[in-house]
Amino acid sequence: MQKFTYQNPTRIHFGEGQIAAIANDIPKDKKVLVIYGGGSIKKNGVYEQVSAALASHEWAEFAGVEPNPQYDTLMKAVEKIRNEKFDYLLAVGGGSVIDGTKFIAAAACYEGEDPWHILAKQHTVEAALPLGCVLTLPATGSESNKGAVVSRGKDKLAFMTDKVQPLFAVLDPTTTLSLSPRQVANGVVDAFVHVMEQYLTFPVNAKVQDRFAEGLLLNLIEEGPKALATPDDLDVRANIMWTATQALNGLIGVGVPHDWATHMIGHELTGNYGIDHARTLSIVLPAVMKERRADKEAKLLQYAERIFGIREGSVDERIDAAIERTIAFFKEMQVPTRLADVKLGESDIDVLMSSLESHGMTALGEHGNITLNDSRAILEAAL
Amino acid sequence: MQKFTYQNPTRIHFGEGQIAAIANDIPKDKKVLVIYGGGSIKKNGVYEQVSAALASHEWAEFAGVEPNPQYDTLMKAVEKIRNEKFDYLLAVGGGSVIDGTKFIAAAACYEGEDPWHILAKQHTVEAALPLGCVLTLPATGSESNKGAVVSRGKDKLAFMTDKVQPLFAVLDPTTTLSLSPRQVANGVVDAFVHVMEQYLTFPVNAKVQDRFAEGLLLNLIEEGPKALATPDDLDVRANIMWTATQALNGLIGVGVPHDWATHMIGHELTGNYGIDHARTLSIVLPAVMKERRADKEAKLLQYAERIFGIREGSVDERIDAAIERTIAFFKEMQVPTRLADVKLGESDIDVLMSSLESHGMTALGEHGNITLNDSRAILEAAL
Repeated sequence: MQKFTYQNPTRIHFGEGQIAAIANDIPKDKKVLVIYGGGSIKKNGVYEQVSAALASHEWAEFAGVEPNPQYDTLMKAVEKIRNEKFDYLLAVGGGSVIDGTKFIAAAACYEGEDPWHILAKQHTVEAALPLGCVLTLPATGSESNKGAVVSRGKDKLAFMTDKVQPLFAVLDPTTTLSLSPRQVANGVVDAFVHVMEQYLTFPVNAKVQDRFAEGLLLNLIEEGPKALATPDDLDVRANIMWTATQALNGLIGVGVPHDWATHMIGHELTGNYGIDHARTLSIVLPAVMKERRADKEAKLLQYAERIFGIREGSVDERIDAAIERTIAFFKEMQVPTRLADVKLGESDIDVLMSSLESHGMTALGEHGNITLNDSRAILEAAL
Repeated sequence: MQKFTYQNPTRIHFGEGQIAAIANDIPKDKKVLVIYGGGSIKKNGVYEQVSAALASHEWAEFAGVEPNPQYDTLMKAVEKIRNEKFDYLLAVGGGSVIDGTKFIAAAACYEGEDPWHILAKQHTVEAALPLGCVLTLPATGSESNKGAVVSRGKDKLAFMTDKVQPLFAVLDPTTTLSLSPRQVANGVVDAFVHVMEQYLTFPVNAKVQDRFAEGLLLNLIEEGPKALATPDDLDVRANIMWTATQALNGLIGVGVPHDWATHMIGHELTGNYGIDHARTLSIVLPAVMKERRADKEAKLLQYAERIFGIREGSVDERIDAAIERTIAFFKEMQVPTRLADVKLGESDIDVLMSSLESHGMTALGEHGNITLNDSRAILEAAL
């Protein structure tokens, strides 16, 4: 296990009716801006619960944060905050709304020339507005971590800082019952690949992290298909929600190598073609597993055995079987597993390569040894 | 899964050399009291590392906190703190030193009549001195939770409050290399039973908590015996250390029922006969498993299958086999598994029953249905 420092101060309120808890978590003297997305929260009762919880607070709202939250949209919120002197942010939505709110929190306090530099030049975030969140779409883990991904045109960039870690997160699984099957599937697949990015690398004898990661993978494989088959099962939703949070709250990632090549390549698919984030991951991951099998051999065999019970056959046979089972799980979740599934082909690879190059993605993976040529090979394997 | 609120703000510094990190975690204007036990830290290099880290701080020390930390000892530290105006505590040691320091932190700020009431009358802790810790004996999880157990004569009592949760915890596995085999074994068994108290109850469909608990149990069963067989293996120590922290930092216990009958009965064995805490647990747990098999049937079967791969036989056969495997693990760890192993017999049960009664332990277990008569049956099954 590698040396690490870890802290996760986000207070989690989990379970039905927990939105009411925000009343006590946000100081009464704060002026709160409630930030949300396309308005689904006005249809599923979440908006009413938030309003009720904020009955004793001064607050207003900012709607319209889109999936893959756009810089220009977020900067409108920043302007509103500066003009009207809000000093607490409440994100209500999924990972995009929370990521967007994190950027808004940092940009509102940014004193440099251009807040875009927080992302494009990785400028240090010296301060940010305090923020909390009400999660309605389990997937990204953003509700209790310090990272955020923001888009501007074809650029999809990330930043990380303790300053934007939510102070609290409400996880009420009943809020997820109104999600579409596509949103549910995307969330499960996103969480699954988050675990894989931190697990499927090379062994460093980190047994807690491995066992926890494997537990989360097993949960998603068991519960994901159930969420599609029996969409009213609240227990299933609760387990998926808590699993997705644990998948990217930092815990399984301490003291171990990380990959993230699938995400970096996937971001270009979203940036250039607008493909849902999770669906880029389900296309790219199987190709990464195939192409990087030498680097990942030991963990691929461990994954094969502990997740799918695959113990028979040669090394290659066991790895092939594990990749096939992964693809089968993605198909069960009704997400694409090849570029052809989203109508992309050979000719699109040059576009993606040019984006990867312009974003400096020349040394990806847990060893930093995935060159542009290797990324091309991965994309070709995903055709 | 049941509704819950969870937050664990302790900053963890894990790995070799991390004691140096305390220099930045304790504000420079604080006057620090370093609290430790019998002086082993002066032989294994930990004291020197702490001294070096505190080179820019004003500090002094308080030594002599014993295993099962005694109220009278701790109150001497409180007196020193009040006289010399310390305003930050650093615990350096195992669970007893950290638990003792938590009580000292609360007692030093207590404005009521008698600080013993924090334990005996569960008085609310309104304030406590800030504290951090350097863990040298992985076992209790006290380094990142809000609980503490303190003894006064035959009374061994607990209190819990956010106010005494350590702000940081240094976990350097090299500090555990000088532990005796008995200390190592006790730590592994203590952590194992901590997991069981939160896991072996009844199912509430909490899949993250179950998978995480099972992962920790598997780690302890795999790594515990290795720590005795190859005491210089730092990887083994690192995995045990991180496993023991996760076993009782609250995470696996959110949203699920808890038992703790084994601990409550075990505390009377320590209080009356001075038996090491972990060794009381290894004596009592198998008897609890046997006597409460009806209440715990579903989880006992899950435990049998997922921890030991026991899938064949009748319900009773599988449960019996799981209990036997648990006892075999404890024997491998060289801890007692019966009262006879610590030279106690039938006649001692009355003594223990009278202590249980005087401490109000009349409704133990996850259902609160373990009466005094049931506790007697458990003790008889442990003869």
